[in-house]
Amino acid sequence: MASPVTPPRGMRDFLPGDKARREHVLGRIRGVYRAHGFDEIETPVMEDASRLHAGLGGDNEKLAFAIMRRALTQDDLRSAETALELADLGLRFDLTVPLARFYASNRGQLPSVFRAIQIAPVWRAERPQKGRFRQFVQCDIDIIGEPGVLAEVELIAATASALEALGIPGCSIRLNDRRLLTSMLTVLGFTSASHADVLVTLDKLDKIGTSGVLAELRDRGHEAGAIEALAAVPAFASFGAEAASPDHDAPAAGVALTAGSIAALLPAGVDEQALADLAAIAAAVGHLAPLAFDPFLVRGMGYYTGAIFEVAHPDLGYSLGGGGRYDGMIGRFLGTEVPATGFSLGFERLIDLVELPADDGEGDAALVYDRDVDPAALMALKSTLIAEGARVRLVQRPKNLKAALDQLAADGFARFAAVTAATGQDASALDWRPLESSR
Amino acid sequence: MASPVTPPRGMRDFLPGDKARREHVLGRIRGVYRAHGFDEIETPVMEDASRLHAGLGGDNEKLAFAIMRRALTQDDLRSAETALELADLGLRFDLTVPLARFYASNRGQLPSVFRAIQIAPVWRAERPQKGRFRQFVQCDIDIIGEPGVLAEVELIAATASALEALGIPGCSIRLNDRRLLTSMLTVLGFTSASHADVLVTLDKLDKIGTSGVLAELRDRGHEAGAIEALAAVPAFASFGAEAASPDHDAPAAGVALTAGSIAALLPAGVDEQALADLAAIAAAVGHLAPLAFDPFLVRGMGYYTGAIFEVAHPDLGYSLGGGGRYDGMIGRFLGTEVPATGFSLGFERLIDLVELPADDGEGDAALVYDRDVDPAALMALKSTLIAEGARVRLVQRPKNLKAALDQLAADGFARFAAVTAATGQDASALDWRPLESSR
Repeated sequence: MASPVTPPRGMRDFLPGDKARREHVLGRIRGVYRAHGFDEIETPVMEDASRLHAGLGGDNEKLAFAIMRRALTQDDLRSAETALELADLGLRFDLTVPLARFYASNRGQLPSVFRAIQIAPVWRAERPQKGRFRQFVQCDIDIIGEPGVLAEVELIAATASALEALGIPGCSIRLNDRRLLTSMLTVLGFTSASHADVLVTLDKLDKIGTSGVLAELRDRGHEAGAIEALAAVPAFASFGAEAASPDHDAPAAGVALTAGSIAALLPAGVDEQALADLAAIAAAVGHLAPLAFDPFLVRGMGYYTGAIFEVAHPDLGYSLGGGGRYDGMIGRFLGTEVPATGFSLGFERLIDLVELPADDGEGDAALVYDRDVDPAALMALKSTLIAEGARVRLVQRPKNLKAALDQLAADGFARFAAVTAATGQDASALDWRPLESSR
Repeated sequence: MASPVTPPRGMRDFLPGDKARREHVLGRIRGVYRAHGFDEIETPVMEDASRLHAGLGGDNEKLAFAIMRRALTQDDLRSAETALELADLGLRFDLTVPLARFYASNRGQLPSVFRAIQIAPVWRAERPQKGRFRQFVQCDIDIIGEPGVLAEVELIAATASALEALGIPGCSIRLNDRRLLTSMLTVLGFTSASHADVLVTLDKLDKIGTSGVLAELRDRGHEAGAIEALAAVPAFASFGAEAASPDHDAPAAGVALTAGSIAALLPAGVDEQALADLAAIAAAVGHLAPLAFDPFLVRGMGYYTGAIFEVAHPDLGYSLGGGGRYDGMIGRFLGTEVPATGFSLGFERLIDLVELPADDGEGDAALVYDRDVDPAALMALKSTLIAEGARVRLVQRPKNLKAALDQLAADGFARFAAVTAATGQDASALDWRPLESSR
């Protein structure tokens, strides 16, 4: 056939080894989150198109795969103004919009503080590039209904435990609070209307440095006095020095996280509650994971309303996950405000960092049988071994036995036995040989 | 917001209890299939539209959800002859078409006899009805590259083990062979060109009975002599009698499955190799699961080429799964013939039949805390208990404590302790109370 047999662009097949590895890592994450009191839920992969395009998904909304209405006529095509009119559903681009819809639909059956696990694929029609896929798995935990910092504390503790269980050492958690960002901008003299725009520029600090940020703010026409005041903020003024130091990857690491130490990095007059909350979070989880206050951590999504955090790894140029408080959003589908916090682990980014113990395959057995063996006798042997607890694979004796045995060893089988027409059905009479090295 | 918060039509949210039950059952199925030497793989949820509509999916092709090309212009809409021209991808409607594409793409890295597990959702835009959903999970095992009956034997043995592990008693496996069906029709005098049409009618035997089948064959203009010959086939002639008997649900049960006993139910001259193969299958797995020869089992998909089978349950009016040999199909994407057999368990149909042991929640602990408890102290207690192996949930003391404790017990928590501002961080000082019954 003419069409290529590769998966669709930007998507992947997982062979047995990859699949086993992924499921093993997901199982560990799931186990940790469950131990921390979270419960797994599942929603359909698709949502109503109107919900996916309700403004809660930021730039990701444009990347949604659209599903065409069924039974469209040529007239429907002719009369449509835009392609989106022909779509009634779309594939989810994140797990947060579906969670908000799920909570609105099912809250009567959920506890008043609901701790959700969602481990599932999402789809984005991005230009594929190295390490970025059009179908990828997200691992989210969310706490809905808890207004206090205990929610942030539980999320960070669960995340730190998950990273520990995965054996990814050296991660730190960068913390900030949206209320600190916006109150700081107000104090510096940026108008409320300009905050969103200023934050977009500030979010580039890691990439373009302080001079780049100041230049871009000037280019975009922001108030000169406010820009000058930003340049004088202690944490901003010292950012370049830190960036040039070997400690670049852990910005502001080593700063003890108390309300006073945080305030000292910022202009006077920032949000007091946010300072107190960050200090309370640090006091509760500082011993579980290295924390770093990052006054210029912004995180892209516009829906954050309080504390925000990211997992930083010293060897990587990107974060392994992030989250924060988003009190306004869950209620959008309910008409009432519902406090919420969430954390999303970038599964595709961390899977390659995880070192798994080699599968010892203890007991896993291969039966290498001759072509003329009776299927009933062979099946009887296999059934007996499975009943004894073994994983059993049948392999017809090939010309190149050594290559087949090497393959079995690579697939985790520990032993093999030959089965001939004379062997019979007595599994205890099999002559086992080890498979660690081929012979 | 105006839009409803329910999932899209025909799709479902899974709450924590449902989700846990589903994953538990899938885990058991996966474990059995793995023990039988099968390896799990995964493919993307979508495939190229041209592949989904290549004629391998039968009627299901019409039910595929179509994914719109990105960046369509109004001109594209105006110039399209049909809606499908606007779609480049679609959601898979089964796991067999993706498996054929996967095998063609990756066969160089797979063993010469490849035993695949696929446990994954599929999507069909069917009219939703009781027990039928637009997103549902299929559990498939397939053996690619084995031409002999050993493949059928391994599939049936693995399926019987899975049903046993799920504690679904009383299932039997109905067997037939496409070669018996077509050779029988030839012997009876139906032309080759008419076979597909005759099989569609014969497939309704369970619903419309022998007189209904004969009438429909006449209505559809088939040869009178061939219809008369069909009526005289021993198994056909005796079908009505059986249907009226209490044994209706297990057609032809009790017939010993040898080449001779099967041939006795059919006209002389049917395919000898098929008779021998069914007898060999029966000899190898007859002791693992009750087998029943059903000479009028057709199974809908046109791609079957040899033995076909279905799982029948005495209490249900539908099968719990089925499969068969489909030697022509996998090779469609390769250009060479590759022998293949597969079996698909109807997960959504059997999930409700599974009785799970109650989760004893041994060690699972709830901390009922007062509003003024320090988050750091509470998190320290929680971390200590998790490190001891417990699953831990925090619950702020509500006005109605009894209702909260009942909920915790229902969620599988075994014990709770109160935490006040005076409790401190010493978990060993907690005063545990059991949660089996609320107090």
